[in-house]
Amino acid sequence: MTVDGRLARGERTRTAVLDTAVVLATEAGLHGLSLGQLADALGVSKSGLFAHWRSKEALQLATVDRAVEQWQQRIVAPALAAPPGVRRLWALHDARIAFYETGTLPGGCFFASTEFEYNARPGPVRDRLAEVFARWTSFLERLVREAVDAGELPTGTDVARLAYEVDALGIAAAVRSRLLDPETTYAHARHAVLTRLRALCPDPALLPEGQT
Amino acid sequence: MTVDGRLARGERTRTAVLDTAVVLATEAGLHGLSLGQLADALGVSKSGLFAHWRSKEALQLATVDRAVEQWQQRIVAPALAAPPGVRRLWALHDARIAFYETGTLPGGCFFASTEFEYNARPGPVRDRLAEVFARWTSFLERLVREAVDAGELPTGTDVARLAYEVDALGIAAAVRSRLLDPETTYAHARHAVLTRLRALCPDPALLPEGQT
Repeated sequence: MTVDGRLARGERTRTAVLDTAVVLATEAGLHGLSLGQLADALGVSKSGLFAHWRSKEALQLATVDRAVEQWQQRIVAPALAAPPGVRRLWALHDARIAFYETGTLPGGCFFASTEFEYNARPGPVRDRLAEVFARWTSFLERLVREAVDAGELPTGTDVARLAYEVDALGIAAAVRSRLLDPETTYAHARHAVLTRLRALCPDPALLPEGQT
Repeated sequence: MTVDGRLARGERTRTAVLDTAVVLATEAGLHGLSLGQLADALGVSKSGLFAHWRSKEALQLATVDRAVEQWQQRIVAPALAAPPGVRRLWALHDARIAFYETGTLPGGCFFASTEFEYNARPGPVRDRLAEVFARWTSFLERLVREAVDAGELPTGTDVARLAYEVDALGIAAAVRSRLLDPETTYAHARHAVLTRLRALCPDPALLPEGQT
């Protein structure tokens, strides 16, 4: 095997390990995530993992970064494939709910879970999560602004507030789907955003039909 | 001191201890909450607490129940003082945001924090939290239905979905206010609900003015 091949294999292993860490974080929390727990879950030695991450905190930060990559692939990329405007905003929300539906993460959403876990726990992990949350908020606001610029939402739209609303309707779905009825929850989360956007959009036919 | 006096004092102590447990649960999680950690935070002996709660789980369940009492006093009671209909629904949401604003709980909301913590962690604590969440959802739906019955919301309103929306706009405020800008977050959470209700209500003057 070439050096390049070994590096590629190492990267794949690293990604697979971190994917497990993302799953575990939504079950038992990111703060409780340790190299030992992760090694047990993967059936590998702790020392093997220690070669990648020298501390629990390094592992936690790498887990956040991996969850961001996953979110980019599963939620952001499908949205960017839709045309800018209300269709892209809807595609983003729809992809998010579809991702929760897959059950990939037992706790629904890595970010919602860990943001609640760390919102009163100062330190580098909290800072990283706050930074990711701020970037996500800016991205959502950008999509709303693009819809306004495209004439698909009214000129006077409070961009930041509408972005807050769309995000809130997603966050709540992550927790409610796990504790109450998932199907009803996903339907509410989707129709609430659709109804809101269709009511604001001068050309509601751009969007699938919601229930009023 | 009479027996009644001693009982009353014992109850007050118990409540004060559980109030601290509720605070700690929003900082470091409910699963991590132990009699030892609570004793340290209160500067009392672990054995004194052990007389009240024989296990960590008993303490966790008692903490959930105390958080429910606190929620009743701080959020539900002020809402019930308002007339049924959109004004009560608004009073409930407004009291919730006002409670988050007080900073009483470092993590914002005991329920949102613990529901995310336990949504993939089976057991009696998760079951209790799911039960509380279901009761809260029913209560919100009842308030929406009362508003429909009073003619203050349209007859065709999807009661469960509107309840979901109001709750989602509250849940998101608890986490976002702690990680991003609190003032903007509270303003978004309030105006989003106000705008939604005023748009639906045939007599919007029943509600304070939101920003469109």
